[in-house]
Amino acid sequence: MIWNTNLRWRLPATCLLLQVAMVVLFGVFVRYDHDADPHWIDRQGGENATSDMENEFYYRYPSFQDVHVMIFVGFGFLMTFLQRYGYSSVGFNFLLAAFGIQWALLMQGWFHSYSQGYIHVGVENLINADFCVGSVCVAFGAVLGKVSPVQLLIMTLFQVTLFSVNEFILLSLLEVKDAGGSMTIHTFGAYFGLTVTWILYRPSLHQSKERQSAVYHSDLFAMIGTLFLWMYWPSFNSAVSKHGDAQHRAAINTYCSLAACVLTSVALSSALHKKGKLDMVHIQNATLAGGVAVGTAAEMMLMPYGSLIVGFLCGIISTLGFVYLTPFLESKLRIQDTCGIHNLHGMPGIIGGIVGAVTASCANASVYGAKGLANAFDFDGFKTTWDSSMQGKFQAAGLFVSLAMALVGGIIVGIILKLPFWGQPADGNCFEDSVYWEGPCLRMETEELETKQASKPGSGSRGLGGHILRTTGRRGPGGRSGPSPPK
Amino acid sequence: MIWNTNLRWRLPATCLLLQVAMVVLFGVFVRYDHDADPHWIDRQGGENATSDMENEFYYRYPSFQDVHVMIFVGFGFLMTFLQRYGYSSVGFNFLLAAFGIQWALLMQGWFHSYSQGYIHVGVENLINADFCVGSVCVAFGAVLGKVSPVQLLIMTLFQVTLFSVNEFILLSLLEVKDAGGSMTIHTFGAYFGLTVTWILYRPSLHQSKERQSAVYHSDLFAMIGTLFLWMYWPSFNSAVSKHGDAQHRAAINTYCSLAACVLTSVALSSALHKKGKLDMVHIQNATLAGGVAVGTAAEMMLMPYGSLIVGFLCGIISTLGFVYLTPFLESKLRIQDTCGIHNLHGMPGIIGGIVGAVTASCANASVYGAKGLANAFDFDGFKTTWDSSMQGKFQAAGLFVSLAMALVGGIIVGIILKLPFWGQPADGNCFEDSVYWEGPCLRMETEELETKQASKPGSGSRGLGGHILRTTGRRGPGGRSGPSPPK
Amino acid sequence: MIWNTNLRWRLPATCLLLQVAMVVLFGVFVRYDHDADPHWIDRQGGENATSDMENEFYYRYPSFQDVHVMIFVGFGFLMTFLQRYGYSSVGFNFLLAAFGIQWALLMQGWFHSYSQGYIHVGVENLINADFCVGSVCVAFGAVLGKVSPVQLLIMTLFQVTLFSVNEFILLSLLEVKDAGGSMTIHTFGAYFGLTVTWILYRPSLHQSKERQSAVYHSDLFAMIGTLFLWMYWPSFNSAVSKHGDAQHRAAINTYCSLAACVLTSVALSSALHKKGKLDMVHIQNATLAGGVAVGTAAEMMLMPYGSLIVGFLCGIISTLGFVYLTPFLESKLRIQDTCGIHNLHGMPGIIGGIVGAVTASCANASVYGAKGLANAFDFDGFKTTWDSSMQGKFQAAGLFVSLAMALVGGIIVGIILKLPFWGQPADGNCFEDSVYWEGPCLRMETEELETKQASKPGSGSRGLGGHILRTTGRRGPGGRSGPSPPK
Repeated sequence: MIWNTNLRWRLPATCLLLQVAMVVLFGVFVRYDHDADPHWIDRQGGENATSDMENEFYYRYPSFQDVHVMIFVGFGFLMTFLQRYGYSSVGFNFLLAAFGIQWALLMQGWFHSYSQGYIHVGVENLINADFCVGSVCVAFGAVLGKVSPVQLLIMTLFQVTLFSVNEFILLSLLEVKDAGGSMTIHTFGAYFGLTVTWILYRPSLHQSKERQSAVYHSDLFAMIGTLFLWMYWPSFNSAVSKHGDAQHRAAINTYCSLAACVLTSVALSSALHKKGKLDMVHIQNATLAGGVAVGTAAEMMLMPYGSLIVGFLCGIISTLGFVYLTPFLESKLRIQDTCGIHNLHGMPGIIGGIVGAVTASCANASVYGAKGLANAFDFDGFKTTWDSSMQGKFQAAGLFVSLAMALVGGIIVGIILKLPFWGQPADGNCFEDSVYWEGPCLRMETEELETKQASKPGSGSRGLGGHILRTTGRRGPGGRSGPSPPK
Repeated sequence: MIWNTNLRWRLPATCLLLQVAMVVLFGVFVRYDHDADPHWIDRQGGENATSDMENEFYYRYPSFQDVHVMIFVGFGFLMTFLQRYGYSSVGFNFLLAAFGIQWALLMQGWFHSYSQGYIHVGVENLINADFCVGSVCVAFGAVLGKVSPVQLLIMTLFQVTLFSVNEFILLSLLEVKDAGGSMTIHTFGAYFGLTVTWILYRPSLHQSKERQSAVYHSDLFAMIGTLFLWMYWPSFNSAVSKHGDAQHRAAINTYCSLAACVLTSVALSSALHKKGKLDMVHIQNATLAGGVAVGTAAEMMLMPYGSLIVGFLCGIISTLGFVYLTPFLESKLRIQDTCGIHNLHGMPGIIGGIVGAVTASCANASVYGAKGLANAFDFDGFKTTWDSSMQGKFQAAGLFVSLAMALVGGIIVGIILKLPFWGQPADGNCFEDSVYWEGPCLRMETEELETKQASKPGSGSRGLGGHILRTTGRRGPGGRSGPSPPK
Repeated sequence: MIWNTNLRWRLPATCLLLQVAMVVLFGVFVRYDHDADPHWIDRQGGENATSDMENEFYYRYPSFQDVHVMIFVGFGFLMTFLQRYGYSSVGFNFLLAAFGIQWALLMQGWFHSYSQGYIHVGVENLINADFCVGSVCVAFGAVLGKVSPVQLLIMTLFQVTLFSVNEFILLSLLEVKDAGGSMTIHTFGAYFGLTVTWILYRPSLHQSKERQSAVYHSDLFAMIGTLFLWMYWPSFNSAVSKHGDAQHRAAINTYCSLAACVLTSVALSSALHKKGKLDMVHIQNATLAGGVAVGTAAEMMLMPYGSLIVGFLCGIISTLGFVYLTPFLESKLRIQDTCGIHNLHGMPGIIGGIVGAVTASCANASVYGAKGLANAFDFDGFKTTWDSSMQGKFQAAGLFVSLAMALVGGIIVGIILKLPFWGQPADGNCFEDSVYWEGPCLRMETEELETKQASKPGSGSRGLGGHILRTTGRRGPGGRSGPSPPK
């Protein structure tokens, strides 16, 4: 099936419409919170003077910046492994995240920071908005290369909404703990994305298979993404934990889990290859599963060895998933999961939810101290009567709610995205930048693709690599300084 | 015109001379400030004991590191989009910034941190030095590919000097607020650079046009620069704001403005292409304009929706600039602006100055609180009698002073750089690494270029890409471990 | 000599064995320290309430993350300069560091954080573990391209052990100051690595010389590593310094030293080339020598100009080393130092030790203040009777101990690694990813290499670059989603 991929009116209209809506809604609803308001200074100088250092900014800002890097560079570059989809991987991720964080500030704000008619935002809201977008980036991994930027914006709009509802149910109604988002971010994002890609199943995707792999340098670009995700994951899991020991502990546990995960990923990658060679796909992805899987329990007393065990298992499960499960999902269940998010976010996310439930159930005052236990799980207010086992049950419930929301939401959004006018590429044009990008090195391929669409697919692909270089330097007299204006 | 591009004596002499001067001047003038001096400990243990956490280091250091990344990786890689100028983009940016921060520590130190015969430096000075160099990096974008490293060092020497004088006039004489440097860094840097490139006009630059464009992977390298600039811009605009709410607010506003800017840049990029395709040039550059344009007002009560509006407009204006204005500037005004800095730093910088003046004018005690207003604009000392409208007028004056300094300074420095003995490349050798760099993959091109200079230009360029790979692995037996010593 | 490079059982077995050992040892020994334990909250609310901000996490975490980036992205990408060894550079560095940090937490924990039967870990332990691994990354630079991942894990196991013993002798027995690790990390790591590579001398390495050089984009990838090392080095040298002025001062000194080092590296690089051209090898490496050489003295009163002088000299010495010394070491002493670590870590490390000893000797109360001096050098407890000159002597002794440990340890570990069953590549297969990595773009080369091993070496290398692209897109129908399961 051939759709019209000329987005000249659809993409600008979508972007401008959404952005105007954001401006209006921010104008009506969004204000600074107490720590970002000039009245902050009134807290100083009196008897109970507060040091500026107590401003939430100094507790959270370094972690926020690390999370920000994970969302934009981490996820963006992780997906550049495709040989001809680097512009789109980084660029569309940039676009959807930039929209998503605004919409998330509003949605999460209405649920969690709303008072006296206004949403009050501070640095913690920025982190949570990034988190919410993280789940969209996860889902993007499943549909990577097969959707248009318009579809991505629509998906972001709906997914952020559903994410916020789900997060509200978990954190506010079920009183679940999920600081690093094993359930709210990874499980929800992964199964949402997998459901969407299942609905968007493309029977002739094999026509684009020659581009669904890496070239040497695209794999190195992807490693930039992998490493920034890996290095900053301790910040991710600790960013919104309580001040002091919880934040500290979350970072240590994540550090441990990720380290263990690297060794087992490498071990399995080598063991599953007949000559014992390593596969970059596993190194780029499975090494991160340990971070996903301690997302719920990192701030709890998981203990360093507990973290190592979680990372140990997840490296194995994730690598096995890439080798055996992803091909099975594609051939039997018609789930075309471009980046293998089921292995990196799906299974480890569920494991993370379970680990969290178990760790919470086992919590007791001899380990946490009486005050520490109440503080860690907020056993006060209406939760005064709760004990750890109750907390554990609610944690488990939260996992099921996340899965249910992801499946139902994914089906609805998938059906919306299946509508034929969003500018999606044909099955033979997937994983190809030149469908949506202009560039000196892309022009020849565009012509080629246009010809191809009329003739039989795949025949021209062998030469693509060569063209990338041969056609360089032909942007015409304008060069960078003068891209041609529209005619 | 053919200049001698052999820098064997000129570049080493310039570097060593400048560095020796730095050593001597640092020896005479630079000392640690109070928070970096061992006497710090004397503040502890008594009645009014100060926590170590109150050391300025902990307020500013994380922001400093983010700014540092923007200057070296952000600007450095943003300019690697050129297919054959990656070494120079990153390498020369590295060189000029490394010299510039030293000279800026001195110049800014004499103006702002001088007492009892010494300049006292601390982490805030490091940030300000990075800021100052930021304006040189901006100007570098205009002359990129057309100047020698010696010229860049000379330009840095003068531009840092002029920057510091301008900054002193604005911040200390006019009492202007400009935390993120819309005026002092971006407006000044851009118009300075544009004036210099106007003076250095190269009538036959079309001979190098085939290299003034990107190849596939060079655009991905440039996205590393773009994203690190984009992600860390909230740190840039908040790095030297007052502790507490001002720093917090500046980060939030910048985050909002940048997010909005991405959507309108994408919208315009698509709308201005006849098939609705996106241009990497816009994604790499226009998406950042929102950060420039809230540089002055970010710490004020611009409000989140105000930031969105600023970002919204700047994405549009910047993209329009790339499509219509840059070609016009080049063909009509003879301003060859390699990176399009007028669109990213020039116009958004002016907008930022105006937004700052307006926001300052509108400030009042009902929004800021009486104490907050006085604190935000330093309405004390000789400014006790000032009101917001007065502040607004001085802000506007600061913008004009910056523009005037940039134009006059740019003309003078441009004339100095036009002297024929700085080792600049010929018009047909611009945007080419092999003029100044040795490397296994560059050797063949060098020979080719040397031949070309005698014959007609452009003919050999089509094959360049191919050579990049074909000549690899020929560094000879020495390899990395043994670059040939001079003969 | 041809070894079996099929690691199918050896690599998985090594990884799993080591990781299981880590799990068990962590289970027995590792617990959270006071600041990461839930009992932290008990310090609050009473008379001597402690702010959460006083948690060690907030003093050290931003620096920790910077150091983390240096180890994984900095060292990992610095070594990607080799045209055909990018996967291995980044991937093996990732693997060895992930194992090393776990083992270092244990080893350093037993020596420094052991009490009541447990090792108590907090953020400072994470930093120190990263530091320890830094010394392994340094040594990896010497043997890069010539060892198998199994050898690297073995080397890491031993080197971390020796590092911890040496560190204990220096810091705890000799009471040496070495915050940035000029002696413990760089000198030890470099001479250890050089000794290992000397033992592992490969007489026919010239058969792989055609791959021991860069291609255009591999040099740009390496610059990512260089810049992240350069930018975050102030965090490295200040990360474990005392709170307050020492940490502040260490950052300033390192910033200055590194800036000066860039200018002299560029100067020498140009001066030593007959046409005055710059060499990327020097820009990638020598520019960092200034950070190494202030590793010991950065937290002392080295003064900004003192830092500039150290950086000035090290840029010169390091560049001279690359041009003259490395070829000499290789041809005369049979030390094949792939990355030239002797120039970047060896000589600058020794200089750093000397600078530290001299700076410590010159310390006096008129500069530091009486309290400041005692605080800076811990002149209390059994050191009450020490003076600066005594401290200087012990500093010098520490340097000799580090060198001795490195040489003796390197010989022992080198002999172990020389055993023929670790899966090391043949002399003609060094610097080649396809020996250990599977990938669509590597397959053809593998076959070629297998043929080559039987025929004469080198002949096929010219075409390698071309193949990189020509064989893309041939991963077969599975693509990323379906790497073939083992047959």
